[in-house]
Amino acid sequence: MILRNSRSSIKKSNILEKDFLTKWYGEGSFDFQIKNNESIFVCSKYKELDLVELDQLLQTVGWSRRPMRRVKRALEHSILVIGVWIHDNKFPRLIGFARCTGDGVLEATIWDVAINPVYQGLGLGKILMQYLLKELRGIGISKVTLFADADVVKFYKSQGWNLEPRGSKCAFWYAN
Amino acid sequence: MILRNSRSSIKKSNILEKDFLTKWYGEGSFDFQIKNNESIFVCSKYKELDLVELDQLLQTVGWSRRPMRRVKRALEHSILVIGVWIHDNKFPRLIGFARCTGDGVLEATIWDVAINPVYQGLGLGKILMQYLLKELRGIGISKVTLFADADVVKFYKSQGWNLEPRGSKCAFWYAN
Repeated sequence: MILRNSRSSIKKSNILEKDFLTKWYGEGSFDFQIKNNESIFVCSKYKELDLVELDQLLQTVGWSRRPMRRVKRALEHSILVIGVWIHDNKFPRLIGFARCTGDGVLEATIWDVAINPVYQGLGLGKILMQYLLKELRGIGISKVTLFADADVVKFYKSQGWNLEPRGSKCAFWYAN
Repeated sequence: MILRNSRSSIKKSNILEKDFLTKWYGEGSFDFQIKNNESIFVCSKYKELDLVELDQLLQTVGWSRRPMRRVKRALEHSILVIGVWIHDNKFPRLIGFARCTGDGVLEATIWDVAINPVYQGLGLGKILMQYLLKELRGIGISKVTLFADADVVKFYKSQGWNLEPRGSKCAFWYAN
């Protein structure tokens, strides 16, 4: 069901045995393939992240470095943390990421959506977002928000996100 | 210090004894008065909220009703919940409210900022926001965000909030 809105070039692979998938990537993870691409990708909310690998991924999309200790705590306090992996029987590689904060009941906010530039353009970001929204819907959250940088506004718009309904604006405050 | 940017018509009252204030409103609460107004107002992050009273307050600012049980859980999962009260030795009344969610480390998002319309225009919203930012800064958060409805964009702008830096937009997704 999660793939119902995806491009036709993406298909659930079912190459990995369910037990194997669950053991490696945790409950609720799913694997899929992309046309003309041999890799098996996996979305997972439970597989533990290596903080150095995560830091490297976030560097590839050009984000400013954040202290590892604080990132670790931020992940612990997030209500949902998603990784997208290229499957490998020995060393799965983290190539996508997103996390959500929120009260876990009424609303959630999505942060740090990242796909390694090498794998951008394949539709992975879209799958990641669909997986994420399905999970949030699963815990009963009915309002999800995010702050989109100028260069990805189109991406969210094309997926049915409502930009600034009724003239609302997002506001940012930074400590000195 | 929290009042350094406030209008001159607002002054820390010191009418309430510190011990009394702490006992009634919790650690870190503070009382203040507004020129030509006899009321003593109190900002507090610890005083327990009556959910019916909160619901009534949110109704006065025209927000859609939310199931009490879910609101209760949302408050429990918020990292900061602030009330503004009119002090009374028997029945303090809740006239202002705001809450934050977030990872408690890197970022926080402000929700449900409300001042009872009867008390709007006195500067209470500004004091509430200053109190809230001071508390967030106190736990080391350096980035705070919020979604401003069209009619309060000016309010946040006047307080130095940065609207949509670098062309970023806010995006909303609602479950069906």
